[in-house]
Amino acid sequence: MLIQEMAAEECWTALRGANFGRLACANDNQPYVIPFYFSVEGSDVYSFSLPGQKLDWMRGNPRVCLEIDHVLSRNEWTSVIAIGRYEELPDTQDYQQERIHAHELLLQNHTMWWQPGAITVASNKGKQGFVPVFYRIQIANVTGYRGVPAPEENSRQTRAD
Amino acid sequence: MLIQEMAAEECWTALRGANFGRLACANDNQPYVIPFYFSVEGSDVYSFSLPGQKLDWMRGNPRVCLEIDHVLSRNEWTSVIAIGRYEELPDTQDYQQERIHAHELLLQNHTMWWQPGAITVASNKGKQGFVPVFYRIQIANVTGYRGVPAPEENSRQTRAD
Repeated sequence: MLIQEMAAEECWTALRGANFGRLACANDNQPYVIPFYFSVEGSDVYSFSLPGQKLDWMRGNPRVCLEIDHVLSRNEWTSVIAIGRYEELPDTQDYQQERIHAHELLLQNHTMWWQPGAITVASNKGKQGFVPVFYRIQIANVTGYRGVPAPEENSRQTRAD
Repeated sequence: MLIQEMAAEECWTALRGANFGRLACANDNQPYVIPFYFSVEGSDVYSFSLPGQKLDWMRGNPRVCLEIDHVLSRNEWTSVIAIGRYEELPDTQDYQQERIHAHELLLQNHTMWWQPGAITVASNKGKQGFVPVFYRIQIANVTGYRGVPAPEENSRQTRAD
């Protein structure tokens, strides 16, 4: 296997074509990583979450890291890592347009595939039941690597799994 | 979809049955997450890495987080998160047995599927070319969640993708 660094534009293309990955946050230097769905527009990643530890930690420390990967086999894969900053889109008047935009993006990208009927995203009234917290991650830096079979692996068919 | 908390024993069963996931580390409260292969024995996770940022950060701050997930569909998935502590298995006489053990485990679990011929794991002499750094993560805490289709989803076939 050869490991090649991906160009920034290749990383962005991979990110914009994805809607599922892992998001890491940290509190007091303890990292925490969870799977999440998202939509990318420009250099912003949009997502939503239920309240919980992840949100508490990102509110306390907005430094986050997003990872996506695509593994065809052990020697054919891509992995993109993006460093960014968490920004909440709170349920206030100032953020209504941003929240509606985020919601539309997430629907378009099939990221937000369910939506309890009782919740109106653009409203700051409905506090019963599931209340999604919308947020944006402003990506500051992307890096990516690609594993490709070495020429001798192609001829030897050394796929391990 | 219903989200159910998994029992600790279910989390361990999932971890011990996995050999691929994501590992998050942190430096100065900046998280960083990468995909990695591993083997689990007892409550220890074994893996190896090339030198680089991840290793530098884990040497500086041993607090890490491991995540595995298994996504059948958007409403059928499991996700297990383990908090642990990085411990390097250095290429010194004191650690030779541990290193050999780690190497055997990784081979058994098909985690270490390639091994450049020039490297002898049990030796602290061969410093040319690829030198894997072996490490262990002592898991302190596991949590897991499972998404299951709600009864009405089963009957309505609401899989989104």
